[in-house]
Formats: sequence, C-alpha cells, structure tokens
Amino acid sequence: MSAFHTQGDPRGGGDVPAIGVGMLGYAFMGKAHANAYRTLSYMTWPPPLVPELVAIAGRNEEAVGEAARRYGFAGHVTDWRALVGDERIGLFDNSGPNDLHAEPTIAAAEAGKHVICEKPLGRDAGESYETWQRVDAAGVKHMCAFNYRFVPAVRLARQLIEAGEIGEVHHFRGSYLQDWGSTTEEVWRFDKAAAGSGALGDLGTHVIDLARYLVGEIEAVSGLVATFQPGREVDDAFEAAVAFENGAVGTIEATRFATGRKNAFRWEVNGSKGSIAFDLERLNELQVHFDGSSPGASVQGFRTVLVSEAEHPFWEFWWPPGHIIGWEHTFVHELHHLLTAIREDGDVAPHGATLEDGYRASEVCDAIVRSADSGARESVQYRT
Amino acid sequence: MSAFHTQGDPRGGGDVPAIGVGMLGYAFMGKAHANAYRTLSYMTWPPPLVPELVAIAGRNEEAVGEAARRYGFAGHVTDWRALVGDERIGLFDNSGPNDLHAEPTIAAAEAGKHVICEKPLGRDAGESYETWQRVDAAGVKHMCAFNYRFVPAVRLARQLIEAGEIGEVHHFRGSYLQDWGSTTEEVWRFDKAAAGSGALGDLGTHVIDLARYLVGEIEAVSGLVATFQPGREVDDAFEAAVAFENGAVGTIEATRFATGRKNAFRWEVNGSKGSIAFDLERLNELQVHFDGSSPGASVQGFRTVLVSEAEHPFWEFWWPPGHIIGWEHTFVHELHHLLTAIREDGDVAPHGATLEDGYRASEVCDAIVRSADSGARESVQYRT
Amino acid sequence: MSAFHTQGDPRGGGDVPAIGVGMLGYAFMGKAHANAYRTLSYMTWPPPLVPELVAIAGRNEEAVGEAARRYGFAGHVTDWRALVGDERIGLFDNSGPNDLHAEPTIAAAEAGKHVICEKPLGRDAGESYETWQRVDAAGVKHMCAFNYRFVPAVRLARQLIEAGEIGEVHHFRGSYLQDWGSTTEEVWRFDKAAAGSGALGDLGTHVIDLARYLVGEIEAVSGLVATFQPGREVDDAFEAAVAFENGAVGTIEATRFATGRKNAFRWEVNGSKGSIAFDLERLNELQVHFDGSSPGASVQGFRTVLVSEAEHPFWEFWWPPGHIIGWEHTFVHELHHLLTAIREDGDVAPHGATLEDGYRASEVCDAIVRSADSGARESVQYRT
Amino acid sequence: MSAFHTQGDPRGGGDVPAIGVGMLGYAFMGKAHANAYRTLSYMTWPPPLVPELVAIAGRNEEAVGEAARRYGFAGHVTDWRALVGDERIGLFDNSGPNDLHAEPTIAAAEAGKHVICEKPLGRDAGESYETWQRVDAAGVKHMCAFNYRFVPAVRLARQLIEAGEIGEVHHFRGSYLQDWGSTTEEVWRFDKAAAGSGALGDLGTHVIDLARYLVGEIEAVSGLVATFQPGREVDDAFEAAVAFENGAVGTIEATRFATGRKNAFRWEVNGSKGSIAFDLERLNELQVHFDGSSPGASVQGFRTVLVSEAEHPFWEFWWPPGHIIGWEHTFVHELHHLLTAIREDGDVAPHGATLEDGYRASEVCDAIVRSADSGARESVQYRT
Repeated sequence: MSAFHTQGDPRGGGDVPAIGVGMLGYAFMGKAHANAYRTLSYMTWPPPLVPELVAIAGRNEEAVGEAARRYGFAGHVTDWRALVGDERIGLFDNSGPNDLHAEPTIAAAEAGKHVICEKPLGRDAGESYETWQRVDAAGVKHMCAFNYRFVPAVRLARQLIEAGEIGEVHHFRGSYLQDWGSTTEEVWRFDKAAAGSGALGDLGTHVIDLARYLVGEIEAVSGLVATFQPGREVDDAFEAAVAFENGAVGTIEATRFATGRKNAFRWEVNGSKGSIAFDLERLNELQVHFDGSSPGASVQGFRTVLVSEAEHPFWEFWWPPGHIIGWEHTFVHELHHLLTAIREDGDVAPHGATLEDGYRASEVCDAIVRSADSGARESVQYRT
Repeated sequence: MSAFHTQGDPRGGGDVPAIGVGMLGYAFMGKAHANAYRTLSYMTWPPPLVPELVAIAGRNEEAVGEAARRYGFAGHVTDWRALVGDERIGLFDNSGPNDLHAEPTIAAAEAGKHVICEKPLGRDAGESYETWQRVDAAGVKHMCAFNYRFVPAVRLARQLIEAGEIGEVHHFRGSYLQDWGSTTEEVWRFDKAAAGSGALGDLGTHVIDLARYLVGEIEAVSGLVATFQPGREVDDAFEAAVAFENGAVGTIEATRFATGRKNAFRWEVNGSKGSIAFDLERLNELQVHFDGSSPGASVQGFRTVLVSEAEHPFWEFWWPPGHIIGWEHTFVHELHHLLTAIREDGDVAPHGATLEDGYRASEVCDAIVRSADSGARESVQYRT
Repeated sequence: MSAFHTQGDPRGGGDVPAIGVGMLGYAFMGKAHANAYRTLSYMTWPPPLVPELVAIAGRNEEAVGEAARRYGFAGHVTDWRALVGDERIGLFDNSGPNDLHAEPTIAAAEAGKHVICEKPLGRDAGESYETWQRVDAAGVKHMCAFNYRFVPAVRLARQLIEAGEIGEVHHFRGSYLQDWGSTTEEVWRFDKAAAGSGALGDLGTHVIDLARYLVGEIEAVSGLVATFQPGREVDDAFEAAVAFENGAVGTIEATRFATGRKNAFRWEVNGSKGSIAFDLERLNELQVHFDGSSPGASVQGFRTVLVSEAEHPFWEFWWPPGHIIGWEHTFVHELHHLLTAIREDGDVAPHGATLEDGYRASEVCDAIVRSADSGARESVQYRT
Repeated sequence: MSAFHTQGDPRGGGDVPAIGVGMLGYAFMGKAHANAYRTLSYMTWPPPLVPELVAIAGRNEEAVGEAARRYGFAGHVTDWRALVGDERIGLFDNSGPNDLHAEPTIAAAEAGKHVICEKPLGRDAGESYETWQRVDAAGVKHMCAFNYRFVPAVRLARQLIEAGEIGEVHHFRGSYLQDWGSTTEEVWRFDKAAAGSGALGDLGTHVIDLARYLVGEIEAVSGLVATFQPGREVDDAFEAAVAFENGAVGTIEATRFATGRKNAFRWEVNGSKGSIAFDLERLNELQVHFDGSSPGASVQGFRTVLVSEAEHPFWEFWWPPGHIIGWEHTFVHELHHLLTAIREDGDVAPHGATLEDGYRASEVCDAIVRSADSGARESVQYRT
C-alpha cells in the first residue's frame, strides 16, 4: 500500500499527492486535529499532501456520525480497528484518550500506516517504550503531538538557542498552570486507568518536552507530587528540581490548582549571553534579552518580540505583521510538518517530536513519581 | 430568487439551508474572508447557512484561478459582473480594493443579493452615502466589514458598557498604529484614486467605528492630517480631538509611521464607575477596572481578562479557557453574524456594522479632512 | 549678598559652600521639596551646595511651625515677605499654590535670591510671562519645577533622541490620566482664582513640557476642554491635536476623570528609526524599540529597559541595578541640578526647565483654551 | 541603661523619646539603613523614637570617617567593640558582612542594646541559632533585616491571605533572579569564609523568608545547588521543590546567572479562592485574582493593584495615589516598625522578622545544601 496516492493537483496541473486520514477521537483533540487538516489544505498552499478525511472512529455512534458530518470525514466507525484495516488510510491520527494510545497506534503502524499520537504517549514509561519500539520497527513515520514545538515563538526560541545567541544555557524554569482542578465533574482525565496520571502526564509532559527541545536531555529530578482534591486518583500538581546533562539546572512544575491561570504554560531560559521567556497565554510573543545588543550599552532589556513577521517561523502561511494567530494553528504547523516528512520521506525530528520523544518524556515523568515516592533524587535512565 | 436554498442538512437530517457566495478579490481580505467561510462551516456547527463557494472574481485570470482552487470556489471569473448575474449566488462578498466597493456592491444588491463590503465603504462620504442608499433601497441584508466589532473582547466591552458597568462615559482615546508607511513598494493603498485616503480610511475608520460602537455618535472633530513620505498622494497619519453627542470627549489617531508598532489598535474608555482598555496585538485580553469591586476596598486595579471562557462572546465555538484564538477568527464571527441575519431575516445592527455605519464612518473621515484643511472644528453632519 | 557662603566642608576638609533655603508652602509640594533637600545632602554626596533650611512660610502658624520642626527648618514665618527679606536665604523655593507663584517669586528674585517655582508658573500666559521676564531681569538662576524631566528614564529618552537613535521624530502622543476629579472635597485646585485652570495647568503642563523637551516646540493646537462635575469652575479634562515646528504631529491630553488611572502620565515618541514609550506609574522603566537592532533581523520589539544601571542618568547616586527608586527622587535630581547651576554659575537649561519654559507651557495652555473657545486651530505665539 | 532617653519633642511639646544608634558597616546596606534613619525622622512624623546617629564602625578609618560625615553620625570608630561599649547607643544596627553578624550582634545584645542584623543571620544554621539564642536571652528587641516584608504590596498580600481572601493555599513559587554572577571582580560575597554561601544566603533567604511569612513553615526540601563560575567557592544558584507544613507545595530558586534579570524577586501564591503574584522590579504593584469577583461572572482576571492608596500598608507616610516609592523605603518601614516595638515594648513578630526567623531561614538553607549533597529530600528540623 502506498502511503499516499495522487489526485487532481491542488496547484492546478498534473498529478498531486494526497493521503487518506483516519482519526480516532472527536472531542477536544479531535476537533483541534480536524480543524488543522482542513485549514492546512489551503493555508499552507500548496500543501505537501492533501489530507483526505476518510473516516473517524468513536464509541458513540450518533456522536461520531455527527462529528464526521461536521468535520467532513467521508465515513465513521465505532471500532478503531476498522481504521486500521482500511486501505484508503495512509495516516492514522490518534486523538483519543490516553488508554487508547498504545494499542491502536501500534496496530496502525504495523498495518503500514504513518501515525501521529496525542501526548502523553503512554500512561507510563513502559507503555510508551513499547509503543515507540513497535511503531518504529514498523518503519513508518511517527509523531507524538507535542504541538507547542510548533508555536512560532517556540521555534524562534529554538533557532536562537541553537545559533548560540544566548550562549551557554544555565537555567530552565517551566511551569504549566491551569485552574480547573477543583471541578467536581467526572472527566476521564481524573480516571487513573484511562489517564495514567493527572497534571503530570497532561501538562507536565509539555513542560518536559520543551525543556528537552530547548535545553537538552534531563539527567536527574527531585520531585514532589500532590493531590489536593479528596478522593481523586491522579495527581493535581507536581514540583521538581531538575538537572540537565549539559549542566543547566532549573525547576519544572505543573498544576491544575493555580486559580486564575487558564493556560499559563510559561518558561524561561537563561544563558550566558541572553535569556528568552514565553507565556502560552500570549503565544504570539517572545521575550528576548541579549547582552550588549543596544546602540548604546545602556539601553538593554527584555524585548517583546511580536512573532508575526514574514521571516518568522511558519509565518509565510499567515497574515501581515501583528495580525496574531491562535492556539489552534500550532496543529496546522505540526501536521504540515508531518505531511512534509511523509511526502519527502524526511525526518520528523528534530523539530517534530517522535514517539521516542514521547517515550523520553514518560521516563522523566516516571522518575518524578519515583522521586516523590522515595524522596531521593532520581536519575533518568533512557532506554534505546 | 431565493437568497438561500436547501441542501443535505449538515446536522444529519432533513433539509438544511445553504447560500451561494460570490467573492470579489483574493488578496489579503479575500484570503481572510475565504478562510472564514470554510472555518465557520464546521466551527460554528451547525452553521446558520452553509456557505457554498460559487465563484471568485479577479482581474488576473491565472491568479484568480489559483485562488479558486486554493480556497475551494467552484468557479472563477475575471469580471465581477459575472458574479452579479449568477443566479446561484445569494451573498456577494466584496473584498476588493476601495475603488471597487461602490459599483459592484450596488449592482449585486440591485440584483437581489445580500452584500458584505470591506471598509472603508467608499473613498469619501458621498460615495459611501450613495452605496448605502442604493443597497438599502434594494431591500437586502448589508454589512460593512468592520471586523473588530467581532473580537470577543470588543463585544464583551460593549456588553459591559451597555449594562452600565462603567457608568457614564467621559473619555475615549483610540489609536491605530502601524509602521510600514516608509516602504517604497508600490501598493494600491498609496494610490489616491484606488484608495481614496491613506491611514485615515484604512485604519482610522476602524477607530471611528469602534468609537461609535462603544461610546456613541461623534459630534465634532478637530484634526490634523500628515504625509511624511515625499511624493505620496495619501495621508500617512491623522490626529484628532473629538466630541461625542453624549458629552464624552477624546482623541483618535491612526498612523503608518509608528515604528515598532505592528498592528497596535488600542483604545480606552473611561466611565464614571470604571474603565476598559484594549490592544489588538493582544486581542484575547481586555483590561477592565471597576470601582469598588474588590473584597476589600483597597484591592482595586485593572484586571487582565483573558476573554476565553465558555460564557464569553463567541467562545461557544472555540476551545477550553486560555487557548487563545487568532485575528482571523473575527471574520468567522462576522460572517456567522451575517448568515444568521440572512437566515432569520434579522437585523445586522447593532452588533454588525451596516452600510449606514460604513457611511457614518466616512462622514467622520471627511470632517477630519475638512478640519485639517480649514483649521476649524468641524461638526459631523450625518445624512439620513 | 553672596548666594552661598561656606561652612564646614561636608567632605571633611577646608571650606565648603552652603546655601540658605527659604520655602513657601508645606503641603504636597512642600513635603516633596523638603524631602529632596534633606536627601540630596547625603545621597548626592558631596552635594554641590549644602542646603541649609533657614525658614518656611505658611499662613497657618501652628501648621507651619509643625512643618518647620518636622522637616528641620530653623525657623518659620506666616508671611512669605519675611523670607524675601532674610539675608541668610540664597534660594527661594516656591512650593505654594498657583496664586502665590508670581508675586513671591518675583520679589525673591528682585531681592537677589535664586528661585525655583512650582508649575504651572502662572495662572495664564500673561502672568507667566511677567514672572519670567522680571525674574530673568534680576539676573538670578531660575527654574520651573517640571520634575519629570528628572526621571532617569525621561533623561535617557532625551539622550537617545538627541543622539539620533530613533531618527526623525514623526509622532508624540501624551496623556496624563488621574481619577480623583469626582471628589466633592473642596481643594484649592478646583478654585479658579487660586489655580487658574484645572487639569490643564496641573497635569497638562507636564505633558506639554515633556513634549517640548523631547520633541521640540509646539506650533499649533486644536483642542477641546471639558468640565464634567456640575458647578466646577475649572476644567476636568482637555484633548488636543498638536503640530510641532519640526513637522511631528500628535495628541496631548490630561484628565482627572480616567477611572482607575492613578498617576498615568504616558507618552510615546515615534521616530523614523525607533520609538520610545513611558508610563509614570512604572517610572523606572523605558520602552525602547530600535529598527534592526537584533542579532538576527527577526528579533525586534519594544524592550523594557529597567533604568537602574550605573551608567544611567542620575543612577550614580543610588543603588545596584534593579533596586528601583521612587517618584520623590525626581525632586532630588531636580534640586541637585539647580544647586549645581548655582554653584558653578552654569545654565539651568536645557535639562532643567527655566521660567521661560514655564512661560512657554502657559502659552500652549492658553492656545488650547482659545482653540476650545473658538473652534479654530490656534498657532502658539511665543513672546521673547 | 535605658534603651531610649528623651530630647526635645519633635512634635513640638513636652518630652519626646530618642534612641542612640550605632551602626556597623557603611557599604550597600549601611547606606540603605542610614538613609532610612534619616528619612523616617520626618516621613513617619512623628517618629516613634528619634534616631540619633551616635557612631558608625568600619575598618578603614578614612572611609568610615567620610561615611560618618556623609550620613550625619556624630562619631566613627574602627572597632565595633567601641559601639558595644558606648552608653549612648540603645540600638545596634549590624549592616556588616556575614562574618561580622554573630559576634557583634551577640555582644551588643548582651550589653543591653536592641539589635537589628542584616540577613543571612549566620553563615549556617548553627551560627544563626547561637546568635538568636544568646540575643534572645539578653531580653532585647531583635530583628533580622528581611526588608521585603516591608514592601507595601507584600504586607497587603499577607493581609489578604490572613483574611482568607484567597482561601486555602496550594502553591508557592518563588525565584530571586539576578545576573551579575559572571563578574570577575573580587567581592566578599564570593568568599566562603566571609559570606558562608552564595546566592543561597544572599538571595535565597529572602525567598525562604517570604515563603514562611506568606504561606507558613517549610517542612521539607529537595534541592540542587550549582556553581557555574570556575574556581568560585560559593554557589551561584540553587533550585528546590518544597513542601509546607500546611500541605502547600512549590518551588524556590535563586540565581546570580539569570542574564537580563536585575533584581527579579518574583513569587506567586495560589489559593483555592484566588491568587497573588509579585515582582520586586515592579514593587509598587501586586497582581491579585479573586474568583467570582466581577459584576458579571465573566469578567475575571488578575488585577494590577497599584499599591499606593491612603488605605494601603505604610502609605500614610507617603504621597497621593500613583506616586510610587522606591526600594529603599522598605528600610524606612522596617526601622519604623522596630522603633515602634522598642518604644512600646511590643513584639517585632509577626510582621517583622526576628532573629528566630533569621535562624529558621538558615535551617532551610542548610537543608537545601544537605539535599543537594545527599540527593535525598530533607526535612527541616527547627530547634527551639
């Protein structure tokens, strides 16, 4: 089976490649991914591959049928195995809950489909490792949906750090703050069997992934885990001091109990020559300080870069300067990146997170849990 | 001809209404409007009317053909009159340059089509008045695309002001600052015949429209107009002191020479009981101050409201709290509003700007130009 | 009479100069000036002249006696004429209400004393002109207490503009926003006979003075004046469009009805190569944008300069970086500047405002009032 | 010996108490304390006790003599023991380096003098404990100069938390960021014998003290310590996850290697009903969020409280709203608090830090060092 086939060229002539997409899940992440497929088809014109929305899977027939009509999937199924067996599908998009990450993703890959799987990859490092190993062995492209690598400001930060603009990195401090943890609604994210963990896997993996993407591998963690809500199975928050392999040190944290913080994923990197800071609630901005950058030496400070210029990452797809984009477009960039890798048989890494990155984030999570339990600093041992 | 017809119900059963859309223009505004039609079809699910992209018009055959393929228009034409004569089209969307606003919009309306026209409505108040009058006489729904009324934070501000939360309004200060005015590229926006004016019509009308939407009718203006670039036909900036009919006073301004300001449309309203401030570069935020609102009287201040909660305007369509949206979604809300008015035979006003609002903004612009010329405070005389 | 005499050298050896200070007024401005004399004596060590607090004048004997004890004046008097006749006094500090600016200041100067007078210099341009002319003719040093020239960030802005770092100036927008105007307390600032005007003289003169200090002479104004409070004699707010002699244009405004704004004196200057912005509520910060200043061209933006480094203006007197100073220290810098000019027989201008600057600000105020009355743009005619 | 004696009443009648002050140290902290004594004498009018600057001690005769003249001390000595033996001195102010904290402070207290000692109290917990115990046994008032308790915004935060306005506290995250650590200058702060530790004692103790003041006692820490500069004896940074006795968890950190951060002592407290955040670089502001505080439920957010109103802590001493104060005035409030406790024989705690608070901060520091060494979470054992 070919991962993609041709259809009428969206650019107006000759053969043009397309790829069939099968998606698992139609809730929050399903909506985000579906929107991205539809949007990238014209916004990243011409797209690397035209995504054809073949079918969407979900357990509730009525709801998944409605989702199919809404987002334009040609069909819908109530068993994800039908997607795995569908020859028209070249890309399996797993936007389902955590307990449906491993098995369907592995099955799809072993059926020869490229895969993208939402984070956290597995509910623990073991499950994540197994998923990565088996998918990788299948020889398909694979991606773990750490979409914040695809915020233009985050990519710009990575470029600055890689180019040495802030020098040697000394510190990373990252926290992901939300405030809905005191809800008494029943959601699968509080169910340990379905979610694996709480703030740790849901929010903490984002912090860990960007720490790794921007600074480097995490070597050791000393952490605490807390559950504030009586009777809750999963963690509401964690706190950790971290050491990186390159000598940088810092703190990482995630919580669902930061009253008033809606989606405040904030991080700061301090280097020997400069610093960079970010807040997801202002995702079009990057705070950047360079030593000695001013006309006169005396006019230094953190500049608020409105990341919206033609030369900024991903900005070729969008609008004139200052016309800011939304959170949902991180998925447009992410899926565009994946489709490009599929089309060109290129690497998903380093800018896209692979399932190995998904696994490594899980290893750090497990180390934090071990440290919380043992009281000891835990070194992170990555399997290869 | 019916403005809309039925097709398969997007909601999965029975008859569902759709409307054919013909669009003039495929550049900046064309891209923004096309994206909005495509996005609203599933994001505002179920949409009030399903927009069917019938045809797009532009003078360059190759470019307009490419735009049709890109955005999914079924056809393309090089003469907008073909849209006016097309029976399948129920809504004429004028995203063309200013000198193509009046004639095509009037023609489409007189052919029985609902119309939306980009701002400024005309190149001067006379042209705007004629357009409004003839379109209105045709009995169709009409809208002037002042999209910033459809920023969630702006709508929320309007709700607060209308509810009396900030009391009697004393001040409005609004400025729209951009910085690309020193470019030497040739763009139609610098061509007086095509554009009518410079910063005044392009940016100033947005300031004027929100001043009117939030505070009320402008009664008199005292202004200055400046052109900094040698040889330029149109204004680069204007400055004005304004008086409102309700006794409020303030300043309005727009410029393309505010170095470092990319899209800084900022306004503040001060009332007897509170104040509200906004900056388009942070369009998901609203700064709100209420007197006496704290638990203790001593904890007052401007709060940064991240306008992204389920109960916030338009937010039913989007994401969980704190997952911010982009500039382009103002058009989604705007066209959703128009399609709702068409579907329900409801009013575009007061939350949507009608062509009368487009005309009134032009009258204020003309008064500023007169004041700049005469040196006198000019009262604004609105024709009815 | 010598303006200053010698006493024991504060620096530990030989003769050291001192100067006797007589002050009129002990309320808000009196407190601010008294604090500055006391503080500069050791903070600007060694001070250019040691201020000896000879006597303070006020109409209420008990209150002025208490003020003398509090601030360390050797004596107190109930008639300012006693200060004028006191041979020990070399510097007359007029911190009294507006209706006590002209006569005492002139009398003191004509008695050979150097003078500093609070703003606004006079209650109208005529009174201001007379004061300036007679004081200047007396041959003493004179200063109008526009203390915001002595904010470190403001001086830094002036240095940057003078050095051409932001290129040719196109825009100035300044507003001074306070919110206590709806008080029903009786204060002399609402009394037309005592104050001359309301927000215009009290706050507007500060905006006008910095506009002149940073950009240049104001050529013409088009303005509105408003009184919101029933029965009030003086203006609560004014709004004006302004044109500068050098071609820059902008808006200026002041109000006591901006609910929630406590002391928000904000201005922004846009030049061809950069921009600078300031807010008095964050007086230790300066927002600065330079075109093309980043390591890569793509990392531009307004930087928040924390003006607190050893090389920053006035910072030699204070603390390590980031240990911010307060509003009251503008007076320390201002009086240090004046004492230096007296000691060295140097010029108060250009960094200090002279009484001529006080007069010129009054001319702009009068032009705004005329424009408000006539409806016409008024050119500002400065007498020499 | 009486701790204070009477002199002419600064309030104009009868007997008024004064107290003789002897100070050790004339560098950064000496300047800050000297300024505070001079300023509080008239700014907190009438002062609880009039501070009489009796003598200042320092090893360099010329420099300490100059300091005495500058700040107005009647005498100067080169051996601090002369202060201890001076009957005129009722308050011993230890602004010296860390290795001169214990012995002189103990000696002064045992000579019957009240004492204030700069932080960190000792170079380790043992030294701090000994100092606290012996001083406390002497029966004098004692204070550890954690001046940030005396920032108006910090006191306001404490009041809000104590009043239950933010509910039960779940999180504290505090970091103190500076950027001068890469200097190659020789300063005593890098000398282990003189300083005891680096960022930990210098900056970290401030974070720890406010964590204790705002949230409660720290129970356990898991930490890392880093030295980036080759050859340096003391730490440049530390990172720790912390658990409080009341169940709150968080992170604390301090570093001298956060490029571009000058004096960024930032903390945030999240409670079940609200949150509070602070940044020392904007010390007049407090960010406060209350759940459900708006007129409509939908207008919530962090409000920027400009802590400068008459009803705000310490603000009775200062200016009209919005006229912000500087870092140095924390010392005015602190010493005013101490003089009040001496005058009224009242408690220094809870708003002032006693030497016990100084000791407890040292215990937390030591636990962080132990945790860094052992890799284990360390519980903090406070001696009584």
